[in-house]
Amino acid sequence: MKEKAIFYHAGCPVCVDAEQLIVDVIDRERFDVEIVHLGEQKARVGEAESAGVNSVPALVVAGHPYHINFGASIEALK
Amino acid sequence: MKEKAIFYHAGCPVCVDAEQLIVDVIDRERFDVEIVHLGEQKARVGEAESAGVNSVPALVVAGHPYHINFGASIEALK
Repeated sequence: MKEKAIFYHAGCPVCVDAEQLIVDVIDRERFDVEIVHLGEQKARVGEAESAGVNSVPALVVAGHPYHINFGASIEALK
Repeated sequence: MKEKAIFYHAGCPVCVDAEQLIVDVIDRERFDVEIVHLGEQKARVGEAESAGVNSVPALVVAGHPYHINFGASIEALK
């Protein structure tokens, strides 16, 4: 079974750039990548925060948050 | 031919965590990953800076820098 990786973003240029990285480099044989736009799916901001996401873009793998560059703080998306 | 991805770090806990992510998720069929410890290889700090790396840990793919969380500024490694 594939492991899940969730990429949270907000549509910002830094987010788009990081999304291209993730889509490009991640091993799709082993990971299912879900892309979540927190600006459009505000109901999922809490879930991202619970995983430790403080800013977007961020990737959550195995419950660990990885902030990739800086686009916007999670506070700005509430 | 595989594309090159360079992961720059400085041995910090945040760096080790990010290195585990990169080693785990990156598609090794398509990418050759080089791991560079800038604390031990100070001669390569300039190369990292030229690629736009401001802090470690960072991954450089196709000339683009991606800062993953924050361990140390590049200035602190000179």
